[in-house]
Amino acid sequence: MELQDYKALFLQHLREKVQVREPEHLYRPVTYILNLGGKRIRPLLTLLSSVAFGGDYRKALDAALAVEIFHNFTLLHDDIMDKAPVRRGMQTVHEKWNVNTGILSGDVMLINAYQFLESYEPEIFKELSRLFSRTAQEVCEGQQYDMDFEKRHDVKLDEYVEMIRLKTSVLLAAALEMGAIIAKASPEDRKQIYNFGIQMGLAFQLQDDYLDTFGDPETFGKKIGGDILEQKKTWLYIKALSVANPLDKERLSVLYHAPTEDENVKIERVRDFFKDYQVDTLIQEEIHAYSLRATAILERLSLEASAKKILLNLVQSLEKRQV
Amino acid sequence: MELQDYKALFLQHLREKVQVREPEHLYRPVTYILNLGGKRIRPLLTLLSSVAFGGDYRKALDAALAVEIFHNFTLLHDDIMDKAPVRRGMQTVHEKWNVNTGILSGDVMLINAYQFLESYEPEIFKELSRLFSRTAQEVCEGQQYDMDFEKRHDVKLDEYVEMIRLKTSVLLAAALEMGAIIAKASPEDRKQIYNFGIQMGLAFQLQDDYLDTFGDPETFGKKIGGDILEQKKTWLYIKALSVANPLDKERLSVLYHAPTEDENVKIERVRDFFKDYQVDTLIQEEIHAYSLRATAILERLSLEASAKKILLNLVQSLEKRQV
Repeated sequence: MELQDYKALFLQHLREKVQVREPEHLYRPVTYILNLGGKRIRPLLTLLSSVAFGGDYRKALDAALAVEIFHNFTLLHDDIMDKAPVRRGMQTVHEKWNVNTGILSGDVMLINAYQFLESYEPEIFKELSRLFSRTAQEVCEGQQYDMDFEKRHDVKLDEYVEMIRLKTSVLLAAALEMGAIIAKASPEDRKQIYNFGIQMGLAFQLQDDYLDTFGDPETFGKKIGGDILEQKKTWLYIKALSVANPLDKERLSVLYHAPTEDENVKIERVRDFFKDYQVDTLIQEEIHAYSLRATAILERLSLEASAKKILLNLVQSLEKRQV
Repeated sequence: MELQDYKALFLQHLREKVQVREPEHLYRPVTYILNLGGKRIRPLLTLLSSVAFGGDYRKALDAALAVEIFHNFTLLHDDIMDKAPVRRGMQTVHEKWNVNTGILSGDVMLINAYQFLESYEPEIFKELSRLFSRTAQEVCEGQQYDMDFEKRHDVKLDEYVEMIRLKTSVLLAAALEMGAIIAKASPEDRKQIYNFGIQMGLAFQLQDDYLDTFGDPETFGKKIGGDILEQKKTWLYIKALSVANPLDKERLSVLYHAPTEDENVKIERVRDFFKDYQVDTLIQEEIHAYSLRATAILERLSLEASAKKILLNLVQSLEKRQV
C-alpha cells in the first residue's frame, strides 16, 4: 500500500467513528474541524509505524484517530487563543459559532481522544494512555512557552528549538511510538522511532519557519511574511540577531518591532537582512541536518520494507516541500 | 476517622502532588484554583467509598485527586464561559490572568487528572479511565444543555433534571464508583454506589436551586435570587409554569423575562409567585424523595460501618444545609 491508500483508509475510519449526536451544538463543531482536511500526517505516522514494526494497520486505526482528534483539539483551542479567523480556508470554530462553543467542543475532543484508546487491552491501553498524556502535557507546555516568548526579547536559539520540540515534535514522535506500542515493538525500538519523530518534527517546523518568510507565494497557500508582521521570534530572527554585528543587531531589532507602515516593504527589508547574514542558508543547513539524523535512525532500524520506504520518502519530501 | 480527618489527609496529598513547575504561567493558575478551598466533597466520596467497600483510603488518594482536579478544570472553563469574575470570594483565573491562560491551564488540568490515575495497575487503570472519560464527556454534555436551555422557552422538567444529572450528579456518582473500583467491589455493588451518587447529586443540585431563591442571605454566602435575575430555567421556574393556571403562566413568563427595574422587587415578586403555587414546598418534597432513595440504596448495601455512617450523614446534612 502507498501513503494515499493509508490516508483513504484512515479517513474512512474517521467518518465511521466520528459522527454528530446530541447535544448537536457540542458535537457539530467536532465533525466540522475534523473534516476541514489537512495532510493527516500524524495518524498516518501511527499506521505506518505499526506496519513498520510488523503490526496490522487496522489495529492502529483507533490510536491514529486519537492522535488526529487530539491534534485538532489543539488547533481549535490555539485558534481561540490566537484569535485566528480562518483555518484551511474556512472559518475557525469560534468564528463560525462562538468562543464558548470552541472551548467546550475542544474539551470534549480531548476526552474523546482518550476514549478511542479504550479499544486496546489493559496493558497496551495503559502504555498508550501514559505516552499520550505526557505528550499532551508537553504540547500545552510548548504552547505556553510560545506565548511567553512573545513578551520576551532575550529568547535563545536553544530555548526556541525546545519550544518547537514541545509544541510540534513530541506529537509526531508519540504518534510513531503509539504505532510501535500497538505492534509490540521492543523498548529500544520504541525509543528509536520516537527519536526519529523528534528529528523529523524539528525539520518539519523549521521548514515551516523558512517557508513563512522565503516560500513561494504561489505554492505556499498563505501570505508570505506572516511571522515577520507578527514579530515572532522565529529561528530566522533569533539566529540573525546572534550572528549580526552589534550595529546591525540593533537595526534589525528596531526594524522588527517598529509599527508597520507598508507591510510589503517591511517584509522585504527583513528578508534582505536575513539574506545579508545568510540566515536563509543557515536554516536550510539546519533542516538538512535534522533530516539526515532522522534518516540515519530509520536506516539503522530493522523494519518492514514498504512502510520504511514510505517513512523515508516522507522525511525527504519534508525538505523539498513548498506547502 | 471522621470526615474532617479524611479531608485533612486529602488536602495533604493535594499539596504534595500538585506543585508549581516550569512553565510557571501554565502551572501557577492550577495551584491557585486548587487552593481556593471548597468542601472537597467529590474526592472525599472517592475515599469514603473505597473504605466502605473494605479498601484502604491511601490507595484511593490518587483517584480522589484526579476527580478534584477534573472538577476544578470544569469550574475554570465554566467561569470563562459564564464570564464570572469571582469564585469562592477570589478572582477567577481568567480575571486574575487572562482568558488564554484560563483555557490552557484548564486543558493541562484535564490531562493531569488522567495522569494521576497512572499509579493504578493496568486493569484498574483502564476501568478508572473508562469511567472517568465517560463521566467527563457527560459533564461537557450537561454544560452544553445548560447553555442550550438559556435560549429555549419550552424546557421540560425531565429535560432539566437530565441536564443537572449530567452536569452535577454523574461526577459525584463516578467519584464514588472509582473508590469502589479501587476497593475491587463487585459489579453490582459498583452499580449501586453509582446510583446512590446520582440520587444524592440530584438532591444536592435541587437544594442548590432552592437555596438560591429561598435561602437565608445571612448563611447562604452569596446573593439570593441570582437565578431569577439571570432568568435561569430552574426546577422552581419550570414547575411553577407547569402548575400555574394559563393566565398566571403568562404573567410569570412575562415577569421572569422582563428587564429588571428594581432587582429586589423582581426577586420578591417571583418568590411570591412560587409560594402562591407552593413550588417551594414541592421542591423540598422532591429533594426529600431523592434523599430517601439515596439513603435506601446505602442502607441495603453491606459496607464498612464507620464509612457508611459518614456517607449517610452526608446525605442527611445535604437536606439540612443552608450554604
